[in-house]
Amino acid sequence: MIGKLFCVSVYGESHGKCIGTLIEGCPPGIKVSEEDIAKELSRRRPKPPLGTSRVEPDKFEILSGVFNGYTTGAPINIVIWNKDIDPGDYELFKRVPRPSHADYVARVKYRGYNDYRGGGIFSGRLTAAYVAAGVIAKKLLERFGVKIAAHIVQIGDVYLEKELSYNEIMESRGSSPIECGDGVKAKDMIKVIDSVKKKGDSIGGVVEAIAIGLPVGLGEPIFDRLDGEIAKALFAIPGVKGVEFGAGFKLACMWGSEANDQYTLQDGKVVTITNNSGGIVGGISNGMPIKLRVVFKPTPSIAYRQKSIDLDKMEETYLEAVGRFDPCIATRTPPIVEAVLGIVLADHILRWNAWRELESLEGK
Amino acid sequence: MIGKLFCVSVYGESHGKCIGTLIEGCPPGIKVSEEDIAKELSRRRPKPPLGTSRVEPDKFEILSGVFNGYTTGAPINIVIWNKDIDPGDYELFKRVPRPSHADYVARVKYRGYNDYRGGGIFSGRLTAAYVAAGVIAKKLLERFGVKIAAHIVQIGDVYLEKELSYNEIMESRGSSPIECGDGVKAKDMIKVIDSVKKKGDSIGGVVEAIAIGLPVGLGEPIFDRLDGEIAKALFAIPGVKGVEFGAGFKLACMWGSEANDQYTLQDGKVVTITNNSGGIVGGISNGMPIKLRVVFKPTPSIAYRQKSIDLDKMEETYLEAVGRFDPCIATRTPPIVEAVLGIVLADHILRWNAWRELESLEGK
Amino acid sequence: MIGKLFCVSVYGESHGKCIGTLIEGCPPGIKVSEEDIAKELSRRRPKPPLGTSRVEPDKFEILSGVFNGYTTGAPINIVIWNKDIDPGDYELFKRVPRPSHADYVARVKYRGYNDYRGGGIFSGRLTAAYVAAGVIAKKLLERFGVKIAAHIVQIGDVYLEKELSYNEIMESRGSSPIECGDGVKAKDMIKVIDSVKKKGDSIGGVVEAIAIGLPVGLGEPIFDRLDGEIAKALFAIPGVKGVEFGAGFKLACMWGSEANDQYTLQDGKVVTITNNSGGIVGGISNGMPIKLRVVFKPTPSIAYRQKSIDLDKMEETYLEAVGRFDPCIATRTPPIVEAVLGIVLADHILRWNAWRELESLEGK
Amino acid sequence: MIGKLFCVSVYGESHGKCIGTLIEGCPPGIKVSEEDIAKELSRRRPKPPLGTSRVEPDKFEILSGVFNGYTTGAPINIVIWNKDIDPGDYELFKRVPRPSHADYVARVKYRGYNDYRGGGIFSGRLTAAYVAAGVIAKKLLERFGVKIAAHIVQIGDVYLEKELSYNEIMESRGSSPIECGDGVKAKDMIKVIDSVKKKGDSIGGVVEAIAIGLPVGLGEPIFDRLDGEIAKALFAIPGVKGVEFGAGFKLACMWGSEANDQYTLQDGKVVTITNNSGGIVGGISNGMPIKLRVVFKPTPSIAYRQKSIDLDKMEETYLEAVGRFDPCIATRTPPIVEAVLGIVLADHILRWNAWRELESLEGK
Repeated sequence: MIGKLFCVSVYGESHGKCIGTLIEGCPPGIKVSEEDIAKELSRRRPKPPLGTSRVEPDKFEILSGVFNGYTTGAPINIVIWNKDIDPGDYELFKRVPRPSHADYVARVKYRGYNDYRGGGIFSGRLTAAYVAAGVIAKKLLERFGVKIAAHIVQIGDVYLEKELSYNEIMESRGSSPIECGDGVKAKDMIKVIDSVKKKGDSIGGVVEAIAIGLPVGLGEPIFDRLDGEIAKALFAIPGVKGVEFGAGFKLACMWGSEANDQYTLQDGKVVTITNNSGGIVGGISNGMPIKLRVVFKPTPSIAYRQKSIDLDKMEETYLEAVGRFDPCIATRTPPIVEAVLGIVLADHILRWNAWRELESLEGK
Repeated sequence: MIGKLFCVSVYGESHGKCIGTLIEGCPPGIKVSEEDIAKELSRRRPKPPLGTSRVEPDKFEILSGVFNGYTTGAPINIVIWNKDIDPGDYELFKRVPRPSHADYVARVKYRGYNDYRGGGIFSGRLTAAYVAAGVIAKKLLERFGVKIAAHIVQIGDVYLEKELSYNEIMESRGSSPIECGDGVKAKDMIKVIDSVKKKGDSIGGVVEAIAIGLPVGLGEPIFDRLDGEIAKALFAIPGVKGVEFGAGFKLACMWGSEANDQYTLQDGKVVTITNNSGGIVGGISNGMPIKLRVVFKPTPSIAYRQKSIDLDKMEETYLEAVGRFDPCIATRTPPIVEAVLGIVLADHILRWNAWRELESLEGK
Repeated sequence: MIGKLFCVSVYGESHGKCIGTLIEGCPPGIKVSEEDIAKELSRRRPKPPLGTSRVEPDKFEILSGVFNGYTTGAPINIVIWNKDIDPGDYELFKRVPRPSHADYVARVKYRGYNDYRGGGIFSGRLTAAYVAAGVIAKKLLERFGVKIAAHIVQIGDVYLEKELSYNEIMESRGSSPIECGDGVKAKDMIKVIDSVKKKGDSIGGVVEAIAIGLPVGLGEPIFDRLDGEIAKALFAIPGVKGVEFGAGFKLACMWGSEANDQYTLQDGKVVTITNNSGGIVGGISNGMPIKLRVVFKPTPSIAYRQKSIDLDKMEETYLEAVGRFDPCIATRTPPIVEAVLGIVLADHILRWNAWRELESLEGK
Repeated sequence: MIGKLFCVSVYGESHGKCIGTLIEGCPPGIKVSEEDIAKELSRRRPKPPLGTSRVEPDKFEILSGVFNGYTTGAPINIVIWNKDIDPGDYELFKRVPRPSHADYVARVKYRGYNDYRGGGIFSGRLTAAYVAAGVIAKKLLERFGVKIAAHIVQIGDVYLEKELSYNEIMESRGSSPIECGDGVKAKDMIKVIDSVKKKGDSIGGVVEAIAIGLPVGLGEPIFDRLDGEIAKALFAIPGVKGVEFGAGFKLACMWGSEANDQYTLQDGKVVTITNNSGGIVGGISNGMPIKLRVVFKPTPSIAYRQKSIDLDKMEETYLEAVGRFDPCIATRTPPIVEAVLGIVLADHILRWNAWRELESLEGK
């Protein structure tokens, strides 16, 4: 479970009956349609020529918490049914764990009781449930005027130097099978993925997310800082190995005089001239767009012979090439990153709201 | 408050009576000495020629939870008293916020009621309390054979390419005023800081941390993954703008065949040949050393004229150069990073321990 | 959500698609069979001549977290499907709230968006989900040798003065449609209920629960005391208006010399001669049986004309007699009380276990 | 720690340096004066002719979170220093536990590392910290128009049948050394305590608390119901063995037609004619006064020889009469019950507030 007021749990396994999400604490009166959910789920599915040949239909059902098209304030359970899937060679991976997959840690942690088929709870498939929860979160955020967009900014050596605005990202959407806000870079990224795929290999990538319209004041120091809470949630997406805000790791080489975000007035509102802070200072939103980047590792499934251990015999052995796979998981993640960011912001905007009217009570 | 079983809160303000930490859920029987705490606190203090001229003495007191030299199982409160400090120009910063400091967000979020002197709760001073809590956490971890070390791997353009082991880092400790495991690089870093300081400017940096001796299985998917929990906690250190594990952001350019950590046996134990995962796969520790890097932004206090807003008049104005400051906050942070990492690992090793004996109950 | 390590959420509405429970943090390797769940669910259903004419079939499904008959360590979702039920007059109750039902508070709190049919989330129907979660909890407790039994000790003026042991309660089970450990009293209780029913009225009752086999040390002062945690959970059962441990409210009239539980040795084990503390002292289990009593109010649905408000017109009005109903909800609650007690104990035995092996690490 | 948004921790030991409280999440702008705290703390101290001869001066200090007389939004630490106290015979009680005290469970749970002097963390002394936290909570509640009063309604056989209103309780305050709203009963209670005291014995009691001015809608089903949350917190007061709301345990004998709270209009507001629900239905406040009763056991310290165990030798033995003690701890608890109730209501009014403005955002 994640969140304090807007709380999201995720359940299910890759090859079990279903996956799904339970949202507790969502306020009543949020309009929810199945179309909204279906649309976001479809963004997560691989588009040709990218991606795996397994195309889940994502047949979902709202089991509770929505009545007459609106959230009720009660727990919302959205289930996404799995189709019957051939368990394949997963028995093998239980015994001989795939490098950089969770097969080994899962077996040890869960003492062999884990549902190892398709990676079980570690499968990327569970991110469909994140996306479903994110739809509700983003609807709630809309009430406060907050909007989120994510797109791919790097695949291998191809990266987008220009920082795009929320509008630029949104306008580009749908124009390419890869969600990168720059059409030229999108084509280059597809080429890289294609060449990697032909070699039976995989490649990493970076996704950038932006949230606009936030009021000043989200985030709770000392420990529940907004950046920390967002980072934690992003690491729940399989394959994430790093998160940075604003200028991020570049700040190691920057001087204060360059990095500092000086203030100015814009339409009577305090804004910063630059946004190297990525919209968060001291763990609190400063009203500027939140800007963050997430790095995804290459898909660990590759068509190569790899060294591993037969855990039953405790002997070294080799895993032969695995079959079909996504050459670049990053390409499917922009809607997931948006969802996860939305879930955290929804929680924090409610936490922020809890203090809001107090101001007007001060005269009492 | 952070943590589920080993829970740490931090309180106090830079220029108030004190700062401190409250630890709830620490098991009884952990030996705690004032020397241990004093020693770690002293690591946090700036060493000449680096650092600010303000040298806090860090007079601390264990107020509760320790009896006859051992933790009792009750809440542990460690207070660090502040010395009387001239409030200086902080009234000004309340009205005219310093760029990339928390002055502005604090004023808005707390509606002007915040203790703005010295940055209040946003001051780096509070990290002394993290360090104190970390001493207890690290003592608990020792029981399980877990050890932590952090050092600086980058300041500006100077960076350490070689990855050092826990032992290499520990052996270098004390040999330089800057905690970098490589003596040559340490000297180069000091030069960079010195040149920046002369210009009245500041610079960022990167700290690397290693934790060794962890069992397989720490971390709780879906959301309380070990990497996510660690990342969240690290963002509680002022100035952190990014966190990465293992090969981190480099993974964007890596191929799966290069990035995957293949398995082998070492003394009958399953290990990985490489450690691009940084000891965590699927959010769960895999028994390899945890390796992470944290980027710190340049100190926002600089001796430059900067643009800001007079918030009382809502007019643009300028802030003149501020006085003394740390040219590179990163240099003081290795003990803080260690402490924060220790706090999270202490919590997760207890959570891991909660399932441990169940195995032996299986026969029942 | 309730619990820190063994975490239980409940979702669903009386007249929606389903109700259900999500359990997060259950350790792997707990044997779970559908028979166990079915059996407990059937205990919750009204037995003739008691109870409502609505007999839910409780068709349930384990959606996740159980694999090959054992818990996997992943979130366990158990759904109980609702049958198609005529929504009846619930539109009326939304407008004219039933006295001592949640109709009014639900409408205000959820601003009219709540699913009001059949009481929505406030329906006693949701306790079937508590029971399902309780089955898993009790299975986990069995590993530690802990067992739970509850039975009815009072209906109206009929009450059982004698305190029964765990074995006595269990032996009586199934011998009467009302789960009271004393056969004679059970008959008297049925008579009381029958006479109340004939008048179209309802009556309250008291359930007593016992847990045996607990080790010393469950419960976490200051605030997460075992009795407090249990009490909180019990109030989640609709109709509960009071909880007491050991001698409970009788202690107001007792003298210390009578109330104190003096110690003695039994088979080399420290026990108390009396158990006025109900197995909990200072919020911590003392190894004696936990004894508690819960009072249930009379079913608020009665065949009487009652005063209420037309909330749309904000006018006083009357509600005529409602139809079928349980004359005494208490009769159905022993399995629910057991389940809820089990859920809390499961959480606390894991929390207790988290500190356990530390002892053996002390030599290090 | 207790609470989700208004979070209270308590630390310290009876005979250590201090006790105290840490409040996290308190909104800024709440006026806090040392006089308010001192006044409430003095209510907790025994008044002649009642009570122990140990009169703590309760020298307290606000260490953080209050600036210029107002809360800042940062963690508030209030420490209450202990005076030097002779450790007395506590070594004995560590070895030979006092019946119905926490000596035995503390020794086992904390493996002998606990600070056993004066009961350590189990001492009633810690409730002074609850009271201090309660002062802040009650100040916050005042903003919302919520007020709390508690008084003693039963000592031994003397009990107050008449239910007093908030105003009646407050008007009586200070008129007797025992906080009972009825002057005649107060005298009778003092007589009972006096006679018990002469015999070296102790006696139990019941405290009733009322909260008025609450809006409809506090409390979060399924599990964080308002009554459950309040009950849990009340069990954190040493000596509490039962909690009931409204008609409480009397409901076991009541019929629905008598127990149901029918609705009427009063000054255009929906109210109930009776208040057998104690202001909470379905776990949610219904706008009527919250009414609850808490039973306190007799002080376990008595001037009698009692059977116990020498835990070092594991032999049965006897404890001789202990010295000075409170013959009736209940008499000191009304301010503590108020504080604890206030802490929970403060948390829930913020949780309630988190959803409030959403209504006005609906047009968007």
